[in-house]
Amino acid sequence: MKVHTDYLWFNTKKRQEFIRITDDVAKIVADSGVKEGTVLVSAMHITAGVYVNDWEDGLIADFQVWLEKLAPAGLNYKHHQTGEDNADAHLKRTIMGHQVVLPITAGQLDLGPWEQVFYAEFDGQRKKRVVVKVMGL
Amino acid sequence: MKVHTDYLWFNTKKRQEFIRITDDVAKIVADSGVKEGTVLVSAMHITAGVYVNDWEDGLIADFQVWLEKLAPAGLNYKHHQTGEDNADAHLKRTIMGHQVVLPITAGQLDLGPWEQVFYAEFDGQRKKRVVVKVMGL
Amino acid sequence: MKVHTDYLWFNTKKRQEFIRITDDVAKIVADSGVKEGTVLVSAMHITAGVYVNDWEDGLIADFQVWLEKLAPAGLNYKHHQTGEDNADAHLKRTIMGHQVVLPITAGQLDLGPWEQVFYAEFDGQRKKRVVVKVMGL
Repeated sequence: MKVHTDYLWFNTKKRQEFIRITDDVAKIVADSGVKEGTVLVSAMHITAGVYVNDWEDGLIADFQVWLEKLAPAGLNYKHHQTGEDNADAHLKRTIMGHQVVLPITAGQLDLGPWEQVFYAEFDGQRKKRVVVKVMGL
Repeated sequence: MKVHTDYLWFNTKKRQEFIRITDDVAKIVADSGVKEGTVLVSAMHITAGVYVNDWEDGLIADFQVWLEKLAPAGLNYKHHQTGEDNADAHLKRTIMGHQVVLPITAGQLDLGPWEQVFYAEFDGQRKKRVVVKVMGL
Repeated sequence: MKVHTDYLWFNTKKRQEFIRITDDVAKIVADSGVKEGTVLVSAMHITAGVYVNDWEDGLIADFQVWLEKLAPAGLNYKHHQTGEDNADAHLKRTIMGHQVVLPITAGQLDLGPWEQVFYAEFDGQRKKRVVVKVMGL
């Protein structure tokens, strides 16, 4: 059994940004030498998420409009009494999810035809990390 | 260490349908011979989900009404400019989650008394897959 | 490869309560002897969740207000025709998520600076369990 760990770093230009990371994860899986197993991809900061969905700009815009409706910025959140202004980012990442586990079969990410992995930043413009943990044979 | 992979296929009659798959997953776990480990159950299409909750028709209806309120069909989504009409299905599956990891203990799915695994289809009436990946001893 | 299983028990005083369990999970990881791998932390009851976010009372209050808005108690849910009164708890736990998989690196939980693990109870005042499954080398 092999366990292989790597990290992806992000420092987005905009506060909110969705970044496709499928190829970065696939490269780490190839580096690991694991042929059969799984890979955990998990945001290490609590105002960012990792999710699987469509690589289509319209849908990404729809996600962002939708999240703003369900978890609006600028409300009178209690969290902001600490000096923070990002409570909505904590809520938005909760809806999107903060981690995925992807199957590895025959040395490849075993994804469906339209599955793409994204990093979802909701409070960026500073260095943040995603952990990638590969396990298997 | 063993790694065992299988797939479940679905082709629902209705566009939206929730299907209990606990027994299908348990059978794959039995086939794998894994006695201690985990099993990843993950939708391979981005308009479907996999979740754990109650096997009770009233609650399933409540979930569907609730998802329609949080992520309505028929809005003027940007994704629809590509010719698609299923943006709401992408959003609904995001709320429900698209994968679960279930523990295996003493050769059995280690589930609580009411835990049941469901496939949640939001854009069906065509062939779609779930990957089931068993890992452990 | 090692697989180690343990359980955390809860019996909350209030119906809804969020409890930090990072240290409990870290102790089980230490007990397991696993140095490189992952740990699954998963609620075994379908009206409770497990999530990773901030250990800040204001934000926890914000989460609770927000969940009440997205998935209100006291509506005329079909699930309540069975005699239950907790449909909202099933919905709330769905938004928060019912499980996380945490990486273990160099014998420690490999968490970002603000990541804390929480048990989110939405229908407590009775004994409920979380399964903790450690796998790795």
